[in-house]
Formats: sequence, C-alpha cells, structure tokens
Amino acid sequence: MNHVITLLAAAAVAAASGPQGDEAYNRDLVELAGIPSVSALPENHGDLLAAAGWLQRRLEAAGLENVKILPTEGPRPVVYADFLHAPPGAPTALIYGHYDVQPAADTAPLWASPPFQPEIRDGRFWGRGVSDDKGSGVLPPIQALEAVLRSSSGGGPALPINVKLMLEGEEEVGSPNLEPLLAKHRGLLAADFVLSADGGQIAEDQPGLTLGLRGALALEVELTTAQTDVHSGMAGGAVQNPARALAQLLSTMWHPGNHSVAIQGFYDRVRPITDADRDDIIAYNFDEEQQLLRPLGASEAFGEEGFTSLERLWHRPTLEVVGMGSGFQGEGVKTIVPHRAFVKLAARLVPDQTPNEIEALIEAHVAAHLPCACNASIKLLGFKAHPYTQGKDTMPNRAAAKVLAGLMGNQPKYTRSGATIPALPAFQQHLGASTTVFAFGLPDSNLHAPNENFPLSMYRLARRAWVELLFELGQRAAGGAQSGDDRSEL
Amino acid sequence: MNHVITLLAAAAVAAASGPQGDEAYNRDLVELAGIPSVSALPENHGDLLAAAGWLQRRLEAAGLENVKILPTEGPRPVVYADFLHAPPGAPTALIYGHYDVQPAADTAPLWASPPFQPEIRDGRFWGRGVSDDKGSGVLPPIQALEAVLRSSSGGGPALPINVKLMLEGEEEVGSPNLEPLLAKHRGLLAADFVLSADGGQIAEDQPGLTLGLRGALALEVELTTAQTDVHSGMAGGAVQNPARALAQLLSTMWHPGNHSVAIQGFYDRVRPITDADRDDIIAYNFDEEQQLLRPLGASEAFGEEGFTSLERLWHRPTLEVVGMGSGFQGEGVKTIVPHRAFVKLAARLVPDQTPNEIEALIEAHVAAHLPCACNASIKLLGFKAHPYTQGKDTMPNRAAAKVLAGLMGNQPKYTRSGATIPALPAFQQHLGASTTVFAFGLPDSNLHAPNENFPLSMYRLARRAWVELLFELGQRAAGGAQSGDDRSEL
Repeated sequence: MNHVITLLAAAAVAAASGPQGDEAYNRDLVELAGIPSVSALPENHGDLLAAAGWLQRRLEAAGLENVKILPTEGPRPVVYADFLHAPPGAPTALIYGHYDVQPAADTAPLWASPPFQPEIRDGRFWGRGVSDDKGSGVLPPIQALEAVLRSSSGGGPALPINVKLMLEGEEEVGSPNLEPLLAKHRGLLAADFVLSADGGQIAEDQPGLTLGLRGALALEVELTTAQTDVHSGMAGGAVQNPARALAQLLSTMWHPGNHSVAIQGFYDRVRPITDADRDDIIAYNFDEEQQLLRPLGASEAFGEEGFTSLERLWHRPTLEVVGMGSGFQGEGVKTIVPHRAFVKLAARLVPDQTPNEIEALIEAHVAAHLPCACNASIKLLGFKAHPYTQGKDTMPNRAAAKVLAGLMGNQPKYTRSGATIPALPAFQQHLGASTTVFAFGLPDSNLHAPNENFPLSMYRLARRAWVELLFELGQRAAGGAQSGDDRSEL
Repeated sequence: MNHVITLLAAAAVAAASGPQGDEAYNRDLVELAGIPSVSALPENHGDLLAAAGWLQRRLEAAGLENVKILPTEGPRPVVYADFLHAPPGAPTALIYGHYDVQPAADTAPLWASPPFQPEIRDGRFWGRGVSDDKGSGVLPPIQALEAVLRSSSGGGPALPINVKLMLEGEEEVGSPNLEPLLAKHRGLLAADFVLSADGGQIAEDQPGLTLGLRGALALEVELTTAQTDVHSGMAGGAVQNPARALAQLLSTMWHPGNHSVAIQGFYDRVRPITDADRDDIIAYNFDEEQQLLRPLGASEAFGEEGFTSLERLWHRPTLEVVGMGSGFQGEGVKTIVPHRAFVKLAARLVPDQTPNEIEALIEAHVAAHLPCACNASIKLLGFKAHPYTQGKDTMPNRAAAKVLAGLMGNQPKYTRSGATIPALPAFQQHLGASTTVFAFGLPDSNLHAPNENFPLSMYRLARRAWVELLFELGQRAAGGAQSGDDRSEL
C-alpha cells in the first residue's frame, strides 16, 4: 500500500477497534439479534420489517448514502445503501448479506438463554442470528465502512472503492424473490464483483475461500388414498395404505447397492471431478471423524459409492428426505389405516444441474413409479437455487487471501460447501458478477441449531478484516499492489 | 316361552320402554358419555376412575350384587357385579363391555358438538362413546337387568339365568392387563358362556352374529443414524438418512407384485378358507362400493392378490403402517438431514397365527433387512391379541338369533370382523367360554372418528333385546324352548 492509504487504514482500524468502539459495536449486535426476524414464520413478518428499519437507521448513521428499503413480492424487503465516491477507475463492490434468521421458538427449551434475548458470556454472543448472519456477516462491513468514513473526514477519497450494500430478508427460506429483484434493479445493483458477508471460515486461525456451493431444490410429494383415516381392523388389508405406498415409492429413488440416486437422468449433467478439484481436497486435509461424524454423533459415513465424504459434499449432488409423515405419531398406537402420507425432499445440486430439470426428473419418476390405488401431488417448497462455482484466481479473492492470511496467521485453503446461498448464482446470472465470500461464521457456532453463538474475538477480527479489505481492494485496483501475484482482472 | 316367563318378559319390556323410562335411560348415556374416559391418555386417568365409580353406583342402583372395582396393573380397573339367584341348573352368563373410549381432543375441531358434552339431536346421541361402547354396549344390559329385577319384585326367580358383568377400562388400548386379571379371578368370573356387549350389527334392520375376529399386534420400529439433525447442505450425501433407510426397510415388507406381506413365515399358520367360510361370505352379500369404499372416500380396493375384499378382511392377515414420522413436518421446508425415523406397524392376525410368533418374525425381518449405517430399536405398543373364532351353532347364538330376528325383522347373517376384541380369545383361553356378540354398534356411527353418534331407536332396541335375551336363554336352558333347533350345549 502507498503511504497515505496505509495511514488511513491504520486510523480506521484504530477507530474500529478501541475499547469504547467495541462496546458500541457489541450493542449493535445485541440490538439487532434481539429482533426475531424469522423469515419462515408469518407471525414474524412484522419483526422482519423492524429489522430492516433498524438497519436503515444504522446505515444512515454510518454515513452511507441512498439508504432505502427495496420492496419484494413478499413481506421481506431488501435494504440497500451505497457510497459511490471512489477515485475514477475504482471498481464497485456489492456487499451482500441477510438480516433474516432461522426459527428458534420450536427449540426454545434447548437454549441456555432465550434465543431472542442475546447475551454475552464466556467471550461469546449467544442468541439466534448472532452468527448467521447478523454477527458474522451483516454488521462487520457496516461498522468497517463507518470507521473508514469517519477516519477520512479530514479530506481525500472517503472510500478507496465504490461500495453498494444489499441486505436481504429471505435467505433462510431460499431467497424466492431475489431473482426478480435483481432483474428489476440491475442498474442500481450493478457491480464489478460481489463480496458475500454470508458464509464462513474453516476455524478462527484457518481462513478459507469458497469456490463453490451446491444448488438446491425442495419438493413435497403427497400421496392420498382416501378422504379419511379408517379403523385398521375395519379396512386393513382391503385398501391401499399411503404410508406403505410412500415407502415403496421412496425406495425406488436410490440404488440400494451403490447408494446413488436412482432418478433417471439425475447425474447426466454432473461434471467429473478434475485433478485441480482433487488437489484442493488434498490440501484441505479433511478429518472425517472430527469434521463430519463427531459433531453429529454419527458412527460412520454413508453415501454414493466410489467417492470420499468431501467429494460427496463438494462435488456430488444428493437427494435427501428432510421430513416425512403419515397417520398417528403420538405415544402408543391408534389402530388406523391413514389416508395420506407426505415426504419433503431436498436435492442439493452441482454444476451443471439445474433445479428446473431436476424438478421435472423427480416428477417423471413419481409418475412412473407411483404404486397403485393412490394419487400423488407434488408442490415446490420455495427453495430453488442453482449451484455456484467460480475460478480461484480473481483479484478480490487474492485481496481477501492476503487480508485473511495477515489477520488469521495462515494462508487460506480453497473450499467448496455442500450448502447453498441462492444469491450467488443469481448475481452471476443477473449482474455478471462473481463473488468472493468474505464472512466469518465458524463450524462450531450451532448455526440453525439451539445455542447459536459467535466469539467476540471473531466479531472484532471481522470488522478489522473488512477495513483492511476495502483498502487492499482499492490498492490493487489502482495497480499499486506490492505483491507480484496481482493482475487487474476481477 | 312358557306362560309365566312370557308375562315376566312382557312386564320387563314394558318397564324398559315406557316414555318416562326412556328419559331416565337417555340421561344415563348423557351422563356416562360426558365423562372423558380416554384410556390412551395419561391426563384422563382420573376420568377413567370417575367412569368406573359412576358405573359402580349405577349397578348398585340397578339392583345388582357384589358390585366392586377390581384393580388391574394399570390405572384402569375393571367394574364387576353379579346376580346369582337363578333356578338350579340355570347357566351363568358373563356380560362383557368396556367403559373406556377413544381419544377425541385431537379431532375436536371436526366435531359439530363438543365430543364430551353429549347431546341429542335429529334422533341420535352425539359424542365420544355414545356408541362405542357406552351406548351400544355397556348401558343397555344394565338397564335391562334393572328392568327385569324391578318387574319381578313380586316373587319368583328374579333373573332366569345367573349373570355376571365385567366392564373393562382399557379395550381401546388393547386390554393389556386383561389376561392377568382373568387368571387371577378365574373363579369369580367363571361362566358357561360370554355375552359381549362390545361389537355391532350390520344395519338397524339386519342383525349379524360374529363368528370370528382378527388378532392384533402393534410394534414401533425406530431407526437412528446420529444424535442430532444436521443442516442438509453441510452433511447431505455424506451420512445416512434415517427416513430413506426406513423407506427402504419398509419396502421389503410387502411383495410389490401381489401385495402380500413379505415377512418370511408370515402366512405359515394361516388356515385355508373353507367352503363353509365361502358360504357365509356369499350369504353376507357384501357391497364393496357401499360398505368399504364409499365411507372412506377411496376409489378402489387394494390388497393381497387372489382374494376378495371380504376374504381379505375376514380370513387374511395384514400388516399396516398406522403412523410414520421423521424430520421436519411443518409448513414449507427446513433443510436438515434428520437423525431419527420411526414407523408404527399394526398386524391383524387370523387363526392360527399368534402375536408372539409374528413379533419374532418381524424382528428377524428388520434385523435381516436393516440398511447400513443405522441402528434399529423395536418396541411393543401394548396391543397384542390372539385371533378369535368359534362355531356357529351354540345355544346362546341360537337364542340371540331368535331375539334379533324378532326385533329387527330379518334373520341374522353370520359374519366375521377384521377388527379385534382382545377379551374374546382371552375368555376362551382362561375361562373356557366362547362368546356370543350381542351388541348394537352400527357401521355409520363414526366409531373412533369425529361425530360419533348412535340412534335413540337403536338404544331402545338394544335394551329390549337384552330383556328378551335373558328370558330366551333361561327358557332354552330349562329345556322348554319352542323351536326345534334347540339343544342344551352352550
């Protein structure tokens, strides 16, 4: 970095990290995570608007401009802000995050403290959303931008690059309205690259840069055989049983021998795993016992024959039952033949599968394998995302790698994730922009689970990292990078 | 009947049927059905005791003797009473019924009037238990005994036969404590034959005499793959999915081609259907559309190939899924891989299958077909009953046939039922007594379902029928029957 920028960055980092600053920043997260902005539940729709309003005021206070609420088709709007006063030729980054959270009321008894009354203890925040995505994602870049804008109030370019922020309110329900919004606001949101404040690191001292995410598709298949349940003595053996029919239908969806998905055509578009992919897998040094099985309390891995666990998670699609139900589920027994059974299926997709094609293949499979004397209906469950992949060697990736390595003490590993962020392929498609995931979630933070938490140390590190990234990006875009690896492509 | 007995019967019938009598009898049912004696639910255990207490007082008021509560292993005692002053040589009948009912709170919104606030409208009682078994079974014989005892207060034998009553409180949960109770009180309960006040008729104008019932066995199979659910992106495809494993396991339990049960040995002890059985089936004149499909809203019959619906229900065993569950079952989707899945299976058994043998066969099947990377546990669901069958030509059957034909206008048909009354095979085994089903439930009374109901006309008919049966049995036992079909065997 040149001297002036180095000084500015140092001042901003100082502003972002003082003891007084920390207290105010911690209050930010306690306030925001105290709003139960659960996107899945209709009763929380008012809370989503409250969280959007809180962010609007916070972005204005941070000094950002054009702060506004962009309505979507649903009750969960996008919060937008920008600051577009960088030197001529500087790139524009779109920072993405989400302010909605997973449900927690259904697991409230399992929490050590109430999920929506966040508290700080043992060096961590505890509460729903303190990591995903309010603490590990949304707040650090806002606080970093504020710090840089304040420290530069004496003059000079306020931010080294142009910045736009979009914070959505329905990531946890599959971002159903994101694509229409991107199509509608293509100009407003146009950017050279995206920085995703949703995602995570491998460990507090081990950064990772995400090169790919699986896509997703969720469907519900319902089988009905009658209009009412019936006494199993009165009709058992003489009418179809929908739960039995569902079991038979489901059993045709996987090969019992090699455990692969048996939906015809399911793998047709799946790319072979390349040598470069295998190099990343080797470099990642995955510990199956520690990183996959022990957190679940599972005794053994299981999956498509001929692939390792990490190959299955990073490069192979899957079809999972996420829920299933029929008949009487209480204690003991109620001797009925049920009249309906359902299954919720979630596919995770890899390039070049598309959710629409897989949906059609599953529908065709159900039609072809439907047991007799029952009817099937299929509905989409609002989760439909393309898989995402990108090249390793982009300018923002290199900038992020440098910042993360400096702060966390190790060079980043290149990773993929079996999970899905629907926004990333949507940015690729609608804005032509690829994404550097620059987010600080940790594997042991109980995301989507009871007792979600986030370390204070990581919250502070995230804020510093964003300040440094802004300057690093400005520096590289201006062509004055120190490191030899730097080229101008994005 | 001889002259004296005819007069006594006429007087008793008059006492049991006057308009003033009807009002008090109707109040009996409204009071008893107002007690939510649900045997399946722990929160209703107090109500079971309340119902038993109500019956104890009512039996005493009716003039029966030795009225007492016989405790069982569980919280649901048996109510006992007797009147043993018949002429020498007269037989002893054990009248059986149950005062417990099916749950209704889970379907309360579907009821037109609150299930435990019974009311009379449109010529019917409405409420849980107004038919099964309080109105169609338990109360009519008590009221009939009371009427006969009252009408005979001038002298002579008060009842023409000896009568014992036992009313149990756990028929709806499979009578788990009945066999130990019968073994313990073998002397107290000894009888020449049983009259079951649980069961039904074919229609208001078509009597039926039950020759057989299926046995039952209910099991829960639980598969677990881990200790906790996990994000389906994070682990999907790399760990076993218990719902998928369960579907695969269940699909091995039936032959997809001929729809028979594929548990090895399941049919080994099943008796072939005899010509006499087929004669009864032909005489029954079953209307599959009206009697099986339309009440369910099912479009077609389904079952073991090579058998008619009535053969399947009366003479073939079945294995049904009565409930099944795994993972997320709410609206929409929660993208998890579940860690547990369960299925509740109920078998209906026919002679000479035994619940213990079938339990062992199912356990062996689960062990042999368990998919990899999961654990299975199996537990019995407290429903374990032998199949029941008896000969057609018994004295009580002939007496019942004559009474029913006289009151209902048609000769009875000989039927079997696909359902189960665990007490009947238990009486056969422990008391050496076979059972004449003398009960008045109707197929369209919504048993076990919302809006259970029972016609006032049938309630009155049942009372008259019990009065006439008592005298008819006394008459035949005394050897003075008019009809030529009468012999003294029971």
